[in-house]
Amino acid sequence: MSITRRAIGAGLAAAALAPLSRHAAAAQPPATAQAPAYFRYRVGDMQVTAINDGMAYRSLDGFVPNAPPGALQQAMADNFLPADRFPVTFTTLVVNTGGKLVLIDTGNGDLGAPTSGTWMTNFRAAGFDPANVDVLLFSHFHGDHINGARLKDGTARFPQAEIMVPAAEWDFWTSDDKRASAPDRLKGTFDNVRRVFGPVAANVTRYDWDKEVLPGITSIRADGHTPGHTCFALVSGTGKLMVMSDTTNNTQIFARNPDWSAVFDQDADTARATRRRMLDLAATERMQVSFYHAPFPATGHIVRAGNGYDLVPLMWTPAT
Amino acid sequence: MSITRRAIGAGLAAAALAPLSRHAAAAQPPATAQAPAYFRYRVGDMQVTAINDGMAYRSLDGFVPNAPPGALQQAMADNFLPADRFPVTFTTLVVNTGGKLVLIDTGNGDLGAPTSGTWMTNFRAAGFDPANVDVLLFSHFHGDHINGARLKDGTARFPQAEIMVPAAEWDFWTSDDKRASAPDRLKGTFDNVRRVFGPVAANVTRYDWDKEVLPGITSIRADGHTPGHTCFALVSGTGKLMVMSDTTNNTQIFARNPDWSAVFDQDADTARATRRRMLDLAATERMQVSFYHAPFPATGHIVRAGNGYDLVPLMWTPAT
Repeated sequence: MSITRRAIGAGLAAAALAPLSRHAAAAQPPATAQAPAYFRYRVGDMQVTAINDGMAYRSLDGFVPNAPPGALQQAMADNFLPADRFPVTFTTLVVNTGGKLVLIDTGNGDLGAPTSGTWMTNFRAAGFDPANVDVLLFSHFHGDHINGARLKDGTARFPQAEIMVPAAEWDFWTSDDKRASAPDRLKGTFDNVRRVFGPVAANVTRYDWDKEVLPGITSIRADGHTPGHTCFALVSGTGKLMVMSDTTNNTQIFARNPDWSAVFDQDADTARATRRRMLDLAATERMQVSFYHAPFPATGHIVRAGNGYDLVPLMWTPAT
Repeated sequence: MSITRRAIGAGLAAAALAPLSRHAAAAQPPATAQAPAYFRYRVGDMQVTAINDGMAYRSLDGFVPNAPPGALQQAMADNFLPADRFPVTFTTLVVNTGGKLVLIDTGNGDLGAPTSGTWMTNFRAAGFDPANVDVLLFSHFHGDHINGARLKDGTARFPQAEIMVPAAEWDFWTSDDKRASAPDRLKGTFDNVRRVFGPVAANVTRYDWDKEVLPGITSIRADGHTPGHTCFALVSGTGKLMVMSDTTNNTQIFARNPDWSAVFDQDADTARATRRRMLDLAATERMQVSFYHAPFPATGHIVRAGNGYDLVPLMWTPAT
């Protein structure tokens, strides 16, 4: 065994050297927090800022019901992800179109996992003020996307903002008939939609698919994950960004295995077809993409790889 | 052509909608700076903080003399990197061993490109104070690694710190004979080494390879890039990190193409053998790695890919 191999082995004795220094790092206890989790990039004349809302962890058991036995565990290992839990990270977007400040989804608010809930801190660290938000543009109605709009105690966090929602999503989750016929596991989502949007239902703007819903922002049909799940194409000058929303969960696992269905996909077959269509489109067009659940900063480009796809992360640069 | 394809095409008219909002984002001009560029992770009981020092840009012409014609350009396109220039990013490490605060390399100081020089701002943003640094541990003597130790006007930035340098690097760059026989393009490096280290030459600690130079930190021979170029194995408990220094420049290009030699490699053949040896070791051992010139935060794991390797970036998490 070489010295190098031995050096990185388990047995390095850590006490060989005499103290060298007059300063003890122990006097400065290590901080543990990362830098504020925002990341800026440009799409033509638009400025996009990714705002992270922390993490939640799910058991691997049953997380991907249609993956072959052991395959999820292997994919986790291949990507140096935890062996015992699936990290789900949350990244919303702030889009400054030049004329409007638009939030695409709003994070968990105060109703997420204890390891989430950092959205407002990161939003303010990026220099934004909730009072200046013009539009809340929602991709779909799962709690981790909408709960940031209204706190547990009922407070609206962006009371001045226009609220724009996918018409198909609205029609489904606000229907008493759909709630009555839905499986029990979905009833909480129906109720939460009423909690968040009930007080402002009369003022909500419902948008259709394949429309320019705001200047330079077009809604793209991407149902399956939920009945009204929507992606957004941002186009400005030569800049293009496809906001992939929940087309995949963590791209490291689900872009490479696009036929795998996470438990969150309400209509797994439709979601699978949508996933392949959107990933293929992104690869063909070489468009920049963002994903709500990709590792922060959750943006890059899609390339084909094997029977699936990979996300090539955008290279970090100091300024946009 | 589908509506989706049309929507992301060049022709979206951006004026279709009436103004929706009472707030003009134009009142809040977009900030352009990213969050402070530090990133923390743990290696067993050690805490590592990556500190970025910005970027420099090189012409693609002649940057990889032994790449087939057009191949570098293709690799840049495959990784969605610029078509016209090579971005070189700089990331140093702060290692809190529990007993000592160690810097591994020091960045460009005030002698780098205008798009670099942000090291001290990021270091302070991460909560560190230059007065508390115990050790400067250098991998090699290129200016982007050592100039942060002494400003242009001669000021030492870490006057309290022990300075540790590779013996082979010291012997080469401080030799009058080596300078006399070196090609002209290297003479500036000889002179800069004297500028940085001359005033403290009597107090510099020269270390050998394959030694535990500080508790838990072992020097690994990795010459070729320069005569004394060194990697470092950090081991604490079950945590292991291989600090790859300049074993590759940008991993997106040079891990996948390990036989390509950037112009900075002084002995290209030796550097190529070192690169393959170190990348193979990292892949086999599944060790976490860091690279000085990988995209920030410049850490992850190495996997085999085609005739070369890929860096799988470490997943961002809110806290270490």
